[in-house]
Amino acid sequence: MTGSTPSPFTADDYRARMERAVRAAADAGLAGLLVAPGPDLVWLTGYAPPAVTERLTLLVLAPDHDPVLVVPALEAPDAARAPGASALALRDWTDGKDPYAATAALLGAGGRLGISDNAWALHLLALQRALPGSSYASLTEALPMLRAVKDARELELMAAAGAAADAAFEEIRTVRFAGRRESEVGADLARLLREHGHEQVDFTIVGSGPNGANPHHEMGERVIEHGDMVVLDFGGLKDGYGSDTTRTVHVGEPTEEERRVHDVVREAQEAGFRAVRPGVACQEVDRAARRVVTDAGYGAYFIHRTGHGIGVTTHEPPYMIEGEEQPLVPGMCFSVEPGIYLPGRFGVRIEDIVTVTEDGGRRLNDTTREMVVVD
Amino acid sequence: MTGSTPSPFTADDYRARMERAVRAAADAGLAGLLVAPGPDLVWLTGYAPPAVTERLTLLVLAPDHDPVLVVPALEAPDAARAPGASALALRDWTDGKDPYAATAALLGAGGRLGISDNAWALHLLALQRALPGSSYASLTEALPMLRAVKDARELELMAAAGAAADAAFEEIRTVRFAGRRESEVGADLARLLREHGHEQVDFTIVGSGPNGANPHHEMGERVIEHGDMVVLDFGGLKDGYGSDTTRTVHVGEPTEEERRVHDVVREAQEAGFRAVRPGVACQEVDRAARRVVTDAGYGAYFIHRTGHGIGVTTHEPPYMIEGEEQPLVPGMCFSVEPGIYLPGRFGVRIEDIVTVTEDGGRRLNDTTREMVVVD
Repeated sequence: MTGSTPSPFTADDYRARMERAVRAAADAGLAGLLVAPGPDLVWLTGYAPPAVTERLTLLVLAPDHDPVLVVPALEAPDAARAPGASALALRDWTDGKDPYAATAALLGAGGRLGISDNAWALHLLALQRALPGSSYASLTEALPMLRAVKDARELELMAAAGAAADAAFEEIRTVRFAGRRESEVGADLARLLREHGHEQVDFTIVGSGPNGANPHHEMGERVIEHGDMVVLDFGGLKDGYGSDTTRTVHVGEPTEEERRVHDVVREAQEAGFRAVRPGVACQEVDRAARRVVTDAGYGAYFIHRTGHGIGVTTHEPPYMIEGEEQPLVPGMCFSVEPGIYLPGRFGVRIEDIVTVTEDGGRRLNDTTREMVVVD
Repeated sequence: MTGSTPSPFTADDYRARMERAVRAAADAGLAGLLVAPGPDLVWLTGYAPPAVTERLTLLVLAPDHDPVLVVPALEAPDAARAPGASALALRDWTDGKDPYAATAALLGAGGRLGISDNAWALHLLALQRALPGSSYASLTEALPMLRAVKDARELELMAAAGAAADAAFEEIRTVRFAGRRESEVGADLARLLREHGHEQVDFTIVGSGPNGANPHHEMGERVIEHGDMVVLDFGGLKDGYGSDTTRTVHVGEPTEEERRVHDVVREAQEAGFRAVRPGVACQEVDRAARRVVTDAGYGAYFIHRTGHGIGVTTHEPPYMIEGEEQPLVPGMCFSVEPGIYLPGRFGVRIEDIVTVTEDGGRRLNDTTREMVVVD
């Protein structure tokens, strides 16, 4: 992805986002925002440098001046072609010069600054030296909801990404599983996501049999066998917005126990989804899903939070986890993905992306949540 | 890349690297090292998490205990399969727990800690709160040469990556350029790098005509024309080690001026290469190359440093730049890549990876540096 990637948004859209960010920062008591290459910068400006390196690229947002993008001279021509470039000023610097002093000059002494989660420690340490009177907070801590509420155009893109992932599932359920390696099925999934319009595939988890009991197992050389449960968790970016869905299929007819565990997860996923409505705290979504699993006696085997936000990344706030009291707001998008993992045996996870509507939730994935039997 | 990727190194190799890092840290007055996912962690342990997220993964190295890898519980099974796993202790943490307090407990109060350049600001800020008496320095600042000197096995891998990139160039020079888009030639280059064993393609710069005058132009939809200079700069990772080479070709016969500029860059590249020998400061390589360009009257058009280190990344210390007094040491690997960029017209860059030997330098790229005429 580079600055010249087509964007569905205009310079006015990016200008409005930057203005919204400056207002949100002021409301949160921040003197400014330091935005590093990655999802924050893409969302605010449409710009992604050709590579993220030790050379500083940083968007500086502060209430008393227009947005400034500090950028290596070599990359300034690319930055100038970014879709949001006309809404900001470029400040380029050449090898051997000190970009941190130039950045510091854009910010008053003292105050609290928000900085992108994924800004490099190298850069943060240099900024801390250049602005010794300032304190710093990560954007997830200081402005966790900055990108969380999607506008109408963003929701269209999210829905399209979800529909593309669903189309990939409808095809993958028809392929042969038994006798093939997890990595082969994973390659099929990646190809299908691309065929359905994803420009970036972030993960294609294929966890068969005991591998399914490791929620973050990606895929390996294990040959899938008749009788295996197989967790399929896949997603990426389509037109810059994320998909992420999980279905657990079975090769041949499942046992009674496998069916029971799958039913519990399906009911938990349904309960999590039904808990979604404006004003409800994120942790209530987790509690609703977890209660079903716990009541069924599998609480110890649901070893992760129930969900995570999604947007220009496949993993961002808000998190559906105990302790997260952030209320849901219409336009938020996140996963609801309970799971049960029986070590050494098998795992089941079911995941949809859900968006908050005025009176509840709407699923952006809607393939069947019944257990699909594959060959 | 995941923990289960085959590695050409053994647990003993990783143990030796971690021990070397602890000794280097102590020599540099550091109380410990905090190593984030990315090249440092791959080099020290062979482990690359399936995804780098807001969940903390951190290798803690300190003189008074064995290496500890703090890892999310979900990812612990993958980490346990990393090639260096038997040389360290895993300390896993579950969602909702505080991994920073657990990390802090592994380190004494106070002292100066080194942290990976690319560690996330999110994590550094939390560590600064958890260990308020400590100070922090980036590894590039505190231990810039940690990964710079390659051992014999690493040099074999570097040479193989360079040979693969050279093989890609020998094929790309035979394809049609005129009438095709930069992006098509770039796709050819990416395919060739993969065919010659690269598992990761980091960049395929195709800068034709005026686009070649932007050193970081990647590639675009411009149709290459007869009479264009075309900068081809490409590389990635083969078996975990980097390639990076540049040749500038011409579509049809060049003009006198084009030939002259190319000659100056070729002589500058040769001068930079000839300056390489143990004990010489990095900046001398830059000076030697730059002098040729300046003496020819093009000094203002050589707008970047002469080179950068390469290893498990395609961009790392040491840097061949004015002001870098680090002496060259046998086993270091870096690029020598002077260029001349005439805005709006064309650019020329020639780049080889060079390794320092006992009595000079050895090129790891060795396709012709004469201007190649393509169709």
